[in-house]
Amino acid sequence: MRQNPLAFARNVLKILASRPDAPPSLEGNRLLEAILHRRSVRKFSGVEIPDDVLAAILEAGRLAPCAVNFQTWSFSVFTDRTWRNVWGGPIPFGGSRGILVMADTHRGKKVLKAFPRRPLVEYTLAVINASLAAMNMNIAAEALGVASVMITETGRGGYLDVRFVKEKLALPGGVIPLLTLILGYPKSGPPPMPPKLPVDQVSFSGPYREADSGILRDWLAQMYAGFKADHPGSSFDAQLALYRSRIDKAEADLRELVYEEDAHE
Amino acid sequence: MRQNPLAFARNVLKILASRPDAPPSLEGNRLLEAILHRRSVRKFSGVEIPDDVLAAILEAGRLAPCAVNFQTWSFSVFTDRTWRNVWGGPIPFGGSRGILVMADTHRGKKVLKAFPRRPLVEYTLAVINASLAAMNMNIAAEALGVASVMITETGRGGYLDVRFVKEKLALPGGVIPLLTLILGYPKSGPPPMPPKLPVDQVSFSGPYREADSGILRDWLAQMYAGFKADHPGSSFDAQLALYRSRIDKAEADLRELVYEEDAHE
Repeated sequence: MRQNPLAFARNVLKILASRPDAPPSLEGNRLLEAILHRRSVRKFSGVEIPDDVLAAILEAGRLAPCAVNFQTWSFSVFTDRTWRNVWGGPIPFGGSRGILVMADTHRGKKVLKAFPRRPLVEYTLAVINASLAAMNMNIAAEALGVASVMITETGRGGYLDVRFVKEKLALPGGVIPLLTLILGYPKSGPPPMPPKLPVDQVSFSGPYREADSGILRDWLAQMYAGFKADHPGSSFDAQLALYRSRIDKAEADLRELVYEEDAHE
Repeated sequence: MRQNPLAFARNVLKILASRPDAPPSLEGNRLLEAILHRRSVRKFSGVEIPDDVLAAILEAGRLAPCAVNFQTWSFSVFTDRTWRNVWGGPIPFGGSRGILVMADTHRGKKVLKAFPRRPLVEYTLAVINASLAAMNMNIAAEALGVASVMITETGRGGYLDVRFVKEKLALPGGVIPLLTLILGYPKSGPPPMPPKLPVDQVSFSGPYREADSGILRDWLAQMYAGFKADHPGSSFDAQLALYRSRIDKAEADLRELVYEEDAHE
């Protein structure tokens, strides 16, 4: 998608002007403000995260809600040194810690073979639970002044590189890497809000309501403009092409890992 | 698993004694406390949730982080009246609102056919994103004094009943219900913490570390005891049998919906 300079500028201004829409009646609720003003940060200061702060973040992961209380998650924690040992480079964006979040149906099966093997149901349950834990850690970090970003592609710590991560970390069958939470203190102020769809385009009452195509196109134009503003030498199309180049292998690897019977038993 | 009365009592006491393990150095951080003391509540008072509070909760869903900012989620919001119309009974547990959270890869495709169809990668991305949004709404509710529980099975508002929900809400291809967030004001004080594994059993540094079988067995014994204490007339085994009875259909339906090419185009 190409935009003329005027359209580009207009879209960038829309992004810069956008704010969380908290009802004025709830102003002053600091908890709510922390949640709504949370941003994904991609530039960290290099200042170390103290051990007690990291412990509290992991505690939020441990105590996240989960279906049937099955806790189908595992977290692998990295310092910059241990990250370098495994991945051969620094933690992305200058982060101080990385927490790789995995869907884990392996652990529970050591003591409870409750279900016949139904891989897609199990996988769905495990991905939901692990993602809830990831978000709980993300907000706990925010509560402690620690910024974060969840990566699924950068640094190869996510589901697009399941096979690679699995080998690097010797993950048993039933353990599938989903994303990595990169943690650190922010280097500068919060970045602008990424272009978000209006609430009436993502929520409705009762039956499904189709989104408005015009509003979706406006959103997409902002996505392109925002990407260009952040990466003047690249384009959102180039980024999408990068994903496309990796998606075939990811699909094949994921299918093998999710459905491979032998590896799980 | 049967437990003698002494073992049962010991396990119930373990559950009652268990507390979030926040480092003492971080005491007094109210947002952290709200996150760590959040509980899934299953008894609501019937007091209505004001519209501004519900709007703020949905705003937290809208602003959740997500891979590539693709916002692959949809939320269907129910009052007790609209819940009854669709599901034929009251909101479970006396909740005041229900928010059904769906993985949605349908909406974006109306304007961006960026990727070849790779169903498991798409599904994974959408489930991760939608679950992040669900957790962000859960914590936002907590910040506003609203309790909640995420249900995947009770009331049929989750992935175990995909086909049923899909028909009731006329969901297009690519939209898959995952869970329902039931919201309300709690009827009484917070319930005890469910038995959670120690942090060193779910996290490790670098390569995968197997959990300790003895600790897992202790955890499972607490799961059985806790269930018995909550449901004296039933057992955790009976509950597992209920899941087992529904998992075959869920697996078949999920596979059809995730992989069905025609429905998506």
